[in-house]
Amino acid sequence: MPSINIVLTGFGNVGKAFFRLIADKKVFCRNRYGLDLHLKAVFRSKEAYFSGRRSDLTEITEIMATGTADHPDWTTKLSLDEVLTELKSGVLVECTPTNIETGEPGLSHIGQALGRNWHIAAASKGALVLKFKELMARANMNGVQIKFSAATAAALPTVDVGVLSLAGTEILGIEGILTGVTNLILTRMEEGITFQDALKEAQAKGIAEPNPSLDVDGWDTACKILLISNAVAGTDFSLSDIARNGIRGVTVDDIQKARDEGKVLKLLGRLVRDGEKDKADVKLTAINRDHPLFHVMGSNKAITFFTDTMGAVTVSGGKSDPRGTAAALLKDIVNIYRHSEE
Amino acid sequence: MPSINIVLTGFGNVGKAFFRLIADKKVFCRNRYGLDLHLKAVFRSKEAYFSGRRSDLTEITEIMATGTADHPDWTTKLSLDEVLTELKSGVLVECTPTNIETGEPGLSHIGQALGRNWHIAAASKGALVLKFKELMARANMNGVQIKFSAATAAALPTVDVGVLSLAGTEILGIEGILTGVTNLILTRMEEGITFQDALKEAQAKGIAEPNPSLDVDGWDTACKILLISNAVAGTDFSLSDIARNGIRGVTVDDIQKARDEGKVLKLLGRLVRDGEKDKADVKLTAINRDHPLFHVMGSNKAITFFTDTMGAVTVSGGKSDPRGTAAALLKDIVNIYRHSEE
Repeated sequence: MPSINIVLTGFGNVGKAFFRLIADKKVFCRNRYGLDLHLKAVFRSKEAYFSGRRSDLTEITEIMATGTADHPDWTTKLSLDEVLTELKSGVLVECTPTNIETGEPGLSHIGQALGRNWHIAAASKGALVLKFKELMARANMNGVQIKFSAATAAALPTVDVGVLSLAGTEILGIEGILTGVTNLILTRMEEGITFQDALKEAQAKGIAEPNPSLDVDGWDTACKILLISNAVAGTDFSLSDIARNGIRGVTVDDIQKARDEGKVLKLLGRLVRDGEKDKADVKLTAINRDHPLFHVMGSNKAITFFTDTMGAVTVSGGKSDPRGTAAALLKDIVNIYRHSEE
Repeated sequence: MPSINIVLTGFGNVGKAFFRLIADKKVFCRNRYGLDLHLKAVFRSKEAYFSGRRSDLTEITEIMATGTADHPDWTTKLSLDEVLTELKSGVLVECTPTNIETGEPGLSHIGQALGRNWHIAAASKGALVLKFKELMARANMNGVQIKFSAATAAALPTVDVGVLSLAGTEILGIEGILTGVTNLILTRMEEGITFQDALKEAQAKGIAEPNPSLDVDGWDTACKILLISNAVAGTDFSLSDIARNGIRGVTVDDIQKARDEGKVLKLLGRLVRDGEKDKADVKLTAINRDHPLFHVMGSNKAITFFTDTMGAVTVSGGKSDPRGTAAALLKDIVNIYRHSEE
């Protein structure tokens, strides 16, 4: 049974959920996929945990019990590159916060991992949004894979449906409700409350960030449609190519006006392929009852692929929480190793 | 660029649509996937067409123009086994009519193909429904793949979403609207007409078969949930394990009664995993507005997977016509060869 080394960078909500999930799913992955997953090291901002050759499962349980800060195996003396080199091969799980201006620190982590021929499963978006083509080409040359389900709507399958389930079709267009928070706010506004109140409510529940700009100004949706489109439809978009609406200016009147026409307002990430030039945008759109995304409410996400030979295929649902994102990382790991075994 | 031999058995609506699709998609598959697809032979009930070493694209165009019966290359002298042996390797595309009692003639075709180490993409259900475990084990032993997207709701992705997009999750249950005709009839009944009238209408449009039993008595849904469940959840169901409702006895009153409770009646193929024993059935079910399949109307199909770590994921849509089924066969071919190349 192949033993798979995993190194985790980033120990926020998603990193912690992944840390726990890998422990929970160890036996399942062994029995179901014949994969022996070993989380060997965790890096967070100023320190690292490295289990070396000892049984990681016991240690994970210990760390979850005592808290990382107090655990004697956390150190400030290890570098990511040293650990990747010592372990020789495996998959880097990148969970640091997304920075769409510099891509850091994810970009450096991914660069180092590619330099050591490691596979990558990314939850952070910055590095891939900024350097998609370059990073994919480098991975391809090195014979390793970069997967990013966790960065492209996580528990909602998007990229693998587009690439695998729709193989052989031409993608004529994509429309997605890709950010749970914005859809939740629009749904609450449907129910009659203002944008500001809906936002405050989402912040109080911990669903929206204290600085909500990444979500409500459409950046999160822009990053996702960029990555999905580049991966599925072979486009080469940069963030600056994507015209972007947010939902900040939406009023209860706008919502009511759409409703009077039998429509709902949705923030869609779109790939539009009419004519010569591909176009991607984030667009507040009034859609009618016939549209496959009409009934997607609350913090649910969904994506519709329009194809030449299979018609329109829509995927919806998927848990919107750190464990769902961790599950998307685990899926990518399983598929990286399953494919290369076949 | 790898040259892929394709042999097609069955030349009804789906076989013909596949025949045409392969010609239409030849250049696309070469450019996009680096796969050079060659449809080398077609078998129908009493005769075979075999292109040997000549350019098949020209011949396909010729045959589509002149009609197969008049084409001089059709012969009664070739056997499937001879052709598979001469071509050495490739993929058998099985499109003969489904027979759920004997599995024939698909079962013999698949048996011969496995005997010669050919991959299989099946649209017919009989052989797989009757001998799933045995055929998959034999394929596995021979290092070839059996794919059957076209037999499991075709252009609606089901098996590959369950296996690949939900990898690493435990499948807690499955519910699907898997037969377009029965959902269309129920939708028309929602609109107030009787079962008999809705059936006649669907038959007049060519959507329902003259003998509609396979669909309206739930056999088609039973076959699909059996294959999906066995492939995705590792069950080992036979057709006799699956309790089966049809929609023949449904009255306009039943529909109205459900509506009065805010529900709709749907024919669901289900995998139920509560407690020790897995159970699959085809069950006429009144579902409420919160159910992910509530809004699936007309001849649309959809499937919901309930998972432990990703929540509920629903796929809906996909063209319900012979070309959509042909596209599912092409998808399987692309994925068979793409994976083995990686």
